[in-house]
Amino acid sequence: MLERVEAKTTVADLMAEIGRKARVAAQPLAIASPDKKTAALNAMARAIERRQAEILAANREDVANGVTAGMSTAMLDRLTLDEKRIACIAESIRTIAALPDPIGTVIAEWDRPNGLHIERVRTPLGVIGVIYESRPNVTADAGALCLKSGNAVILRGGSDSAHSSRAIHAALIEGLEAAGLPRDAIQLVPTTDRAAVGEMLTGLDGNLDVIIPRGGKSLVARVQSEARVPVFAHLEGLCHLYIDGSADLAMARKIAVNAKMRRTGICGAAETLLIDRAIAPADFAALLGDLSAAGCEVRAEADVVSVYPAATPAREEDWTTEYLDAIISVRLVDGIGGALDHINRYSSHHTEAVVAEDPKVVERFFNEIDSAILLHNASTQFADGGEFGMGAEIGIATGKMHARGPVGVEQLTSFKYRVRGNGQTRP
Amino acid sequence: MLERVEAKTTVADLMAEIGRKARVAAQPLAIASPDKKTAALNAMARAIERRQAEILAANREDVANGVTAGMSTAMLDRLTLDEKRIACIAESIRTIAALPDPIGTVIAEWDRPNGLHIERVRTPLGVIGVIYESRPNVTADAGALCLKSGNAVILRGGSDSAHSSRAIHAALIEGLEAAGLPRDAIQLVPTTDRAAVGEMLTGLDGNLDVIIPRGGKSLVARVQSEARVPVFAHLEGLCHLYIDGSADLAMARKIAVNAKMRRTGICGAAETLLIDRAIAPADFAALLGDLSAAGCEVRAEADVVSVYPAATPAREEDWTTEYLDAIISVRLVDGIGGALDHINRYSSHHTEAVVAEDPKVVERFFNEIDSAILLHNASTQFADGGEFGMGAEIGIATGKMHARGPVGVEQLTSFKYRVRGNGQTRP
Repeated sequence: MLERVEAKTTVADLMAEIGRKARVAAQPLAIASPDKKTAALNAMARAIERRQAEILAANREDVANGVTAGMSTAMLDRLTLDEKRIACIAESIRTIAALPDPIGTVIAEWDRPNGLHIERVRTPLGVIGVIYESRPNVTADAGALCLKSGNAVILRGGSDSAHSSRAIHAALIEGLEAAGLPRDAIQLVPTTDRAAVGEMLTGLDGNLDVIIPRGGKSLVARVQSEARVPVFAHLEGLCHLYIDGSADLAMARKIAVNAKMRRTGICGAAETLLIDRAIAPADFAALLGDLSAAGCEVRAEADVVSVYPAATPAREEDWTTEYLDAIISVRLVDGIGGALDHINRYSSHHTEAVVAEDPKVVERFFNEIDSAILLHNASTQFADGGEFGMGAEIGIATGKMHARGPVGVEQLTSFKYRVRGNGQTRP
Repeated sequence: MLERVEAKTTVADLMAEIGRKARVAAQPLAIASPDKKTAALNAMARAIERRQAEILAANREDVANGVTAGMSTAMLDRLTLDEKRIACIAESIRTIAALPDPIGTVIAEWDRPNGLHIERVRTPLGVIGVIYESRPNVTADAGALCLKSGNAVILRGGSDSAHSSRAIHAALIEGLEAAGLPRDAIQLVPTTDRAAVGEMLTGLDGNLDVIIPRGGKSLVARVQSEARVPVFAHLEGLCHLYIDGSADLAMARKIAVNAKMRRTGICGAAETLLIDRAIAPADFAALLGDLSAAGCEVRAEADVVSVYPAATPAREEDWTTEYLDAIISVRLVDGIGGALDHINRYSSHHTEAVVAEDPKVVERFFNEIDSAILLHNASTQFADGGEFGMGAEIGIATGKMHARGPVGVEQLTSFKYRVRGNGQTRP
């Protein structure tokens, strides 16, 4: 008992110290020149490559532990690094290095009748906490994105990938030091004690400005319900694809298969297909046939099953399930109005797509759905920071505060006002 | 005891119902045309004017209650309406009506190599809760700003101004109905039971997206510590004015008196004056003489008091006190470096100003201070949404998430992405 209390105190002290160090590091970071940050990022990429053997050895340890612990094949796949994946990690850091530096950018400026000139200028947020699970590449991506946006970061990776994360983190530190930036700019929580997460959720005495959870539903839900600081979270990607009566059917078939089946485990994968009742049964049966041929299970309402008997009957819970698997729920709707009713009832506000040629349908779809990303005649799988040209993303936010959609370097910033006068006083 | 429980349940039910109604109203509001919202706002302004006698009568009731309750003169002044103030309320609504409609504005757009065209478009936040104290004009300002930005709003005014707020609210509803917008777009909590605030802080079952507290420190602190939804709060305006050795002294004297004394009770009033040690004692004594002549008490460190004996000695707590009164704390510092050290230690991150002719000093001041508003050669009292050209403000946010500085219609919005393709699938 006493030992537990002491351990708890130790984690609390440790995390408080990490918070203080991060806040101290955030100040020089906020005013670091773009060149210095770019140099650090490029040095990090080189260090990742140079330390490849060391990172792979650390990763083998994590993988061996995972096998012993009976980790699922999918999780093992996410955890495992090889030379190609390490090259990707380095490449991703270089892509972030090459992005325009957001800090100091004038977002807006205007003059007032009294001669004051007002500028709204991008600034860092301060200290960002990233809580993630087994993917070791998040260590590098999150560290690099936070550095580029001038923020100090506290990384808390999963215990499953602890060795890999530590090895990658060492390379990041090497890059920071090569460029003369404080090593506390990117800190990795050195304990896998879950109490560390609890401490981060309290905000580390005001030294943590925002938390980004990246992982499964239960992690994100815990962070969202317990955090005393703002959270950029995405809970679910229950994405819809609506095929309107005006759609180009060949295009619709291609998009449906891609939106569902390209990768079924990502948040931008389509989970529900809504088909306009105006589409001929033979046509939508052909579309569903494509999905079945691609290995997808189709769960549908009776009016679909009667035309396409390969489908199994859908239940109410199918409209609220993010399968993240080769399963799709299908419903016929009465045109765009019916699609809007369904989506506005069941959407997780992540991503929805419409295939249609009628511009009025597209406009209603774009205006009347409140989701982070809406696509016309394109696959939902484009819901991704890289695909948006943001270089990389730390996640996709489904909330509406501050960040929404892919969270890239710009979304990791705040702003301030600079006002230039020549002696103005307020009357 | 049983009665209390029942009363609590009733307030909980009432607030839950208000939340549901707000969510329902938010949907047509989000897609209401700019013209419809403008028409509603102009109708509200007319209704305020037409109902002047009724509003004044209601206000007399509040004022009489305030007098009986022994309300302070300052609070009574804030509470009391007259014909001129009612004209101001109507005018303020018209100013908001005339602002450009933020909703649907394309904030950014770009093309991707694969032909996708991406637009980032402004959207409403959803449902906003405003919790305020005795100023009845907040009812109109908050209602109008939320409507302009396409948000439903739940207003919870102080019990001191309950009658006035109800009368003003009736005029707002008249405007909504005249334009065919849902009356639930602007709801005023009909009970002064404090449990209603507690219900709002829990987020009304997910039906409240953000809370804006507008009032004294204790209200804001309670909202910030208890709210389970995002809060746009400003806790303190501990604003600094730094006079650099390179300053135009005549300008510095004018700005110092204005920054402190124009209105001492507003958050943009200067509370601490930092003077570069390079300035000749006779010069800074003249500046302090101006402040004394204007009726300001000067609290200073010993090296100032020795030159300017009218000053009283400052204590440590003077550097952390937002006086909101005719008092200023004064300290000599070693140039811009000393000013930055002091400000970065004591600032509330609201507003700071520098008077200087040396551009290097100005650049350091602008870059190395992390406050919402930084001014050069201008009074801190310009920290105001109206002065920034935002038409009106619902408050000044000192946090860095989402909104920062004056919170006007643009700050009450979120965004979504609209992506247009022609059949793109992700490889």
